[in-house]
Amino acid sequence: MDPIYALPQLQAFTLEIFKKIGCPEPQAQLATEVLLQADLRGIDSHGIARLSGYVRLWEAARVNPNPDIKIVHETPSTAVVDGDSGLGLVVAPKAMAIAIEKARIAGTGWVSVRNSNHFGIAGYHAMMALQHDMIGMAMTNASPLVAPTYSVERLLGTNPIAVAVPALTQPPFVADFATTTAANGKLEILQRKNAQAPIGWIQTKDGEPSTDPNETKSGGALIPLGSDREHGSHKGFCLGAWVDIFSAVLSGANYGPWVPPFVAFLQPPADPVGKGIGHFFGAMRVDAFRPAQEFKEHMDNWITRFRNAKTITGQERVIIPGDPEREISALRVKEGIPLNPKVVEDLQALGKKLEIEF
Amino acid sequence: MDPIYALPQLQAFTLEIFKKIGCPEPQAQLATEVLLQADLRGIDSHGIARLSGYVRLWEAARVNPNPDIKIVHETPSTAVVDGDSGLGLVVAPKAMAIAIEKARIAGTGWVSVRNSNHFGIAGYHAMMALQHDMIGMAMTNASPLVAPTYSVERLLGTNPIAVAVPALTQPPFVADFATTTAANGKLEILQRKNAQAPIGWIQTKDGEPSTDPNETKSGGALIPLGSDREHGSHKGFCLGAWVDIFSAVLSGANYGPWVPPFVAFLQPPADPVGKGIGHFFGAMRVDAFRPAQEFKEHMDNWITRFRNAKTITGQERVIIPGDPEREISALRVKEGIPLNPKVVEDLQALGKKLEIEF
Repeated sequence: MDPIYALPQLQAFTLEIFKKIGCPEPQAQLATEVLLQADLRGIDSHGIARLSGYVRLWEAARVNPNPDIKIVHETPSTAVVDGDSGLGLVVAPKAMAIAIEKARIAGTGWVSVRNSNHFGIAGYHAMMALQHDMIGMAMTNASPLVAPTYSVERLLGTNPIAVAVPALTQPPFVADFATTTAANGKLEILQRKNAQAPIGWIQTKDGEPSTDPNETKSGGALIPLGSDREHGSHKGFCLGAWVDIFSAVLSGANYGPWVPPFVAFLQPPADPVGKGIGHFFGAMRVDAFRPAQEFKEHMDNWITRFRNAKTITGQERVIIPGDPEREISALRVKEGIPLNPKVVEDLQALGKKLEIEF
Repeated sequence: MDPIYALPQLQAFTLEIFKKIGCPEPQAQLATEVLLQADLRGIDSHGIARLSGYVRLWEAARVNPNPDIKIVHETPSTAVVDGDSGLGLVVAPKAMAIAIEKARIAGTGWVSVRNSNHFGIAGYHAMMALQHDMIGMAMTNASPLVAPTYSVERLLGTNPIAVAVPALTQPPFVADFATTTAANGKLEILQRKNAQAPIGWIQTKDGEPSTDPNETKSGGALIPLGSDREHGSHKGFCLGAWVDIFSAVLSGANYGPWVPPFVAFLQPPADPVGKGIGHFFGAMRVDAFRPAQEFKEHMDNWITRFRNAKTITGQERVIIPGDPEREISALRVKEGIPLNPKVVEDLQALGKKLEIEF
């Protein structure tokens, strides 16, 4: 059993770390809130396990702890935001807030972001729209780990998409998924367990199918959603490409193989085509289309009908996007967050280095 | 070899058919243009092969040949359009034109459509944005043929998404794909050939994997992109659900299992939750984000880098979304459009019925 930590304890530590590297108090609080939502929602690969990674980027002078985040271009329903090399954990919610403000006036708001860094879980930002009776969307590009169909080169990140839709009495619909067959976090779990991956997740550096979760460490690649051409991997490639273009070609960030790696021990490409990594956010006021109450009643009907569909043998129900994360979240708020012993060691070392007790 | 028909011949026949069922001349021309773009681009399942299907819907009084298509609600960047039971081939381009007009003023335009019918290929509508230096998007829901992960019930259509992005000297990026492992048109091809489908495309009425392309005729279902849970079919389900919600819950069309079937011999559900089928369109002015010239130069760079990536053995190049359809289109404009003999028979019968020579 992994050791369990109470949320407030992890929050306090994370907050102090962000303050220590120079984040002003409100930004440190925001970054802490966003980062730990990943742990709460069960997406352990994107939470506190990455804290020391963010710090190493700061040590490499690739993260600006006190960025001047600003709009560099806008129209009534759009904006381009420059994140000034800030933590994506801070830049992203600020950009999403701009999208929400635009939507208030224009019906929808769409914000493309350049010069940012890893933004935690996409779902967090998309869900910001819900309390305003808006539909939220969030995407980001990421370090190139994915080979398009027929390519042996890694040209895309796992480029996630999140879509959050409010309902009335039902919990919201929250889809949040990497546009690959399996997210990188799933490989990390297999690596820790010394287990094999199913065929269709990974290819070798020569493009051969592989079951070795360590393949990406020796030039191998993750595969777009679909697994192979016959099963639609070209569609997964379309999705990853779409995210890359909206996040980076629209904003002036780096795209494709030029996206700087998250790990600080790898240098960013010497010939950048833009600034930092890119994100894309959207907010649509539900009542810019139909009365919010009416929309949400129909969402309740949609969710209920799908959740209660007749299932295949051995499965209790159809899972509505957002259900599993909500259930884990309720549990972890109450019972605490389990951390892998390697993550604990890493956080202890980080605490020692920055003189903050874990 | 299938018989070859010149495009103008197919156009003339299609135009006369649409006029014969009561479409005013400009609407008949528009419907013809949209429908035959599918044949030109090689998506044979969505072109003239469906013409008699549209006519049967008209015979069943489910298509209004002279609809009053109108905006029922709007904000600066959004609109809801009621298609008045018109042909989707006519309703969709009108709705997309509204999205483009909105984008001119507000930076982006987003239009959700209710009370429509099948709209041909999604790519056509998305591509309308290109000539305006805009990014175009198009989605539609469709007759329920797809079982969400763990479901044996068919609750979603193949719900395609199209995204069209302009470039400078390169041809545009045009993704247009069903959110299932394989589009229904691919099953139809296997049915004609008496061939088997790969595992991962289809399930039986009990949710067991199947290779029989006729399975959907006896309660079986298509599978969301991803093929099975382990390979991400829950993500394909998220995509199909997203399309359904944006197209129909936002607009007030029928969603999920309530979407009326395309085939006229099946009755629409007796308890509709909205009107007709739904679509969703988007247009984003590129220069609402950054100067169009700059954006398009970077798109050229993006496309060139991906197309020239090192490939797996036996593959010449990475296929950029839109490449195959553009190549087929160039060929078919010159050499004509091959039609399956069964389609020819069907068109001859249609011509006989409506007294128009094929």
